[in-house]
Amino acid sequence: MNPTPTPPIITFLSDFGLQDWFVGVVHGVLHLVAPEVRIVDLNHQIPPGDVSRAAFVLEAACPDFPAGTVHLAVVDPGVGTARRALAVRGRGHYFVGPDNGLLEWALSDPQARVHALTETRYFRHPVSRTFHGRDVFAPAAAHLACGIEPERLGPPVGDPVRLALRPHRLADGRFDGCIRYVDRFGNGLTDLTATALAEAFPRVPESRLRVDVAGRAIHGVARSYGDAPIGTPVAIIGSSGRLEIAEVGGHAASRLGFGVGDRVTVRAEP
Amino acid sequence: MNPTPTPPIITFLSDFGLQDWFVGVVHGVLHLVAPEVRIVDLNHQIPPGDVSRAAFVLEAACPDFPAGTVHLAVVDPGVGTARRALAVRGRGHYFVGPDNGLLEWALSDPQARVHALTETRYFRHPVSRTFHGRDVFAPAAAHLACGIEPERLGPPVGDPVRLALRPHRLADGRFDGCIRYVDRFGNGLTDLTATALAEAFPRVPESRLRVDVAGRAIHGVARSYGDAPIGTPVAIIGSSGRLEIAEVGGHAASRLGFGVGDRVTVRAEP
Amino acid sequence: MNPTPTPPIITFLSDFGLQDWFVGVVHGVLHLVAPEVRIVDLNHQIPPGDVSRAAFVLEAACPDFPAGTVHLAVVDPGVGTARRALAVRGRGHYFVGPDNGLLEWALSDPQARVHALTETRYFRHPVSRTFHGRDVFAPAAAHLACGIEPERLGPPVGDPVRLALRPHRLADGRFDGCIRYVDRFGNGLTDLTATALAEAFPRVPESRLRVDVAGRAIHGVARSYGDAPIGTPVAIIGSSGRLEIAEVGGHAASRLGFGVGDRVTVRAEP
Repeated sequence: MNPTPTPPIITFLSDFGLQDWFVGVVHGVLHLVAPEVRIVDLNHQIPPGDVSRAAFVLEAACPDFPAGTVHLAVVDPGVGTARRALAVRGRGHYFVGPDNGLLEWALSDPQARVHALTETRYFRHPVSRTFHGRDVFAPAAAHLACGIEPERLGPPVGDPVRLALRPHRLADGRFDGCIRYVDRFGNGLTDLTATALAEAFPRVPESRLRVDVAGRAIHGVARSYGDAPIGTPVAIIGSSGRLEIAEVGGHAASRLGFGVGDRVTVRAEP
Repeated sequence: MNPTPTPPIITFLSDFGLQDWFVGVVHGVLHLVAPEVRIVDLNHQIPPGDVSRAAFVLEAACPDFPAGTVHLAVVDPGVGTARRALAVRGRGHYFVGPDNGLLEWALSDPQARVHALTETRYFRHPVSRTFHGRDVFAPAAAHLACGIEPERLGPPVGDPVRLALRPHRLADGRFDGCIRYVDRFGNGLTDLTATALAEAFPRVPESRLRVDVAGRAIHGVARSYGDAPIGTPVAIIGSSGRLEIAEVGGHAASRLGFGVGDRVTVRAEP
Repeated sequence: MNPTPTPPIITFLSDFGLQDWFVGVVHGVLHLVAPEVRIVDLNHQIPPGDVSRAAFVLEAACPDFPAGTVHLAVVDPGVGTARRALAVRGRGHYFVGPDNGLLEWALSDPQARVHALTETRYFRHPVSRTFHGRDVFAPAAAHLACGIEPERLGPPVGDPVRLALRPHRLADGRFDGCIRYVDRFGNGLTDLTATALAEAFPRVPESRLRVDVAGRAIHGVARSYGDAPIGTPVAIIGSSGRLEIAEVGGHAASRLGFGVGDRVTVRAEP
């Protein structure tokens, strides 16, 4: 595959929903500033103001896009307050969004370059009081897609707001993480990556790992859903490289009774 | 920003929902007739047949698109009856939709040119009995985007169906409007524009206006959500230039108990 | 209209929903492999794993797209099992999806050419255990849109999984079909096509056909919704050429109490 997107891609995530006109209007602004761009709607059904969920979606989805992609993310309960607007170059991608932790995945790159959106000539005018997605963030994303670097959009920011994520703990041979996200299919995506598991249990085959969640022990990490009969809870490395709790042919979150924030523990079988 | 969209944009609004295939099929027709066009989905979750709500979405969203944009709008409970199909040039944009009031915003332009879609060579054939969005409206919108003028699509119409909107009343120093729309965030968008308010109260600063809605008085029009603490009801000029009733960090319609049609009164504080 | 889509269109149907990021990520893969393609989202709200419903959507929607369109369809409860992945050339279109009956409409073309997706150089790597929509199906669809023929993607398949559809029966002058789909508006789409009805009742005008469904007799097939007053149940040939049960201005499925699988019988009035 071609590693450089030509024309560039702008992904767009928000909590705008699809029942009004806010997503469409932002598309209009993007097309107007950057007519050649391809727009990919990532998710507009983030519950209003749920910055943490939106940050996880970015973390899970962005690595699937090619280097140089611009990610526009607007979950912005602080619109109209003094919260800053940011452009970030990190992880080989560009990001635009409010300074409220939403861009955590980009900011966790030690090489990230962070700039405030203050150069008003890149804004859409007049700037409304309530819709910076249209007036501030979308124009910035479109200009980035046109090759304008974040430095041009405003001054560097040294102290962006970070999301407080619980760190993993490996103690007494137990590796503790949590459910970060439950998807449409009822799969529970954890914060434990395949890489972290391999580091924590370097000589243990996946089939000898035990996963505990919601009072239930799952023995072994499955190679595929096909390894087990319908209705069986399985632990599996999902498509974004994280340990997931799933049920073959079913909705694991309902069946096992877990939700976001619940602890997931991995250990080696004796 | 570039004031002329190149390639042209077609916005698309309907009550088709996303759970069938009707929106996708219309996209196919648009791409086929006008391969270079950019399609922007404005809203497909209008409740079936709710012409008034859809007309408001057009009124609120269309000004955000550049002159020359084509707006395809299909909320068409009368499909298969004798209702006419229209193309309108008004407000500097093009509009296509059924003759049932949906295009009120375009028609309220005194310069609007209105034509019936009767030239069957611009239709998709065979024309079905039930899906003129695909067979009549979408091809017309695509041809407009290709530079065909409304005159070519059919004869002029002198008496398009208009939406009966309650006129504003300014009496005894009170300016009466109503809630026209409640959005995903629970904000109530009124029919009172910032321009109309400035004309009604020419020497009164926004901070000295009082807004009454659902038995509640709100004192002053806020500069931004950030002016007030979480949970406070505010009146604010929203992103489409209308007075909105919002709650900082909350869902105003639920909290205050208002809905579409409820009266909103503005007066100057004594 | 131009019968050859330039650039090509890829339609995309899935059970992914819109609340996660799966649809967006697939768009990214398609854009990357085939930057010039137009992507049309057909439906992503298929209930998880409902292959039969998805197959009907393909059957109803695909004929509206031009010859040469590529249809990407991912309702894949067997991901990770031994089920095959297919590319099909049939009905003048291309199709990509799992071998579970989803592509029934294409497979029912006696001229269909069916190939398994086995050439891993056309996959996205690494191939995940759980998301072949992204890693196997989308790259195949994009390569087809670029002009790669199905033969290049893998060996021929002689025994694809077929959907067991109840055959129509014409006996004692009664033509039996069933409700295959209920759409957003409550219309019941049957498996009886206008063509089949004309063959079954060659000398009977539509106005002399009687349609029985859910214990209710409907007399005559309507020319349009406008033929009957609001609230009247009507039988009508819908936009995909099938007999539909509708209610003028209402939701027929709720009013008449029918659902998918219910019998629909047509006979000539005496």
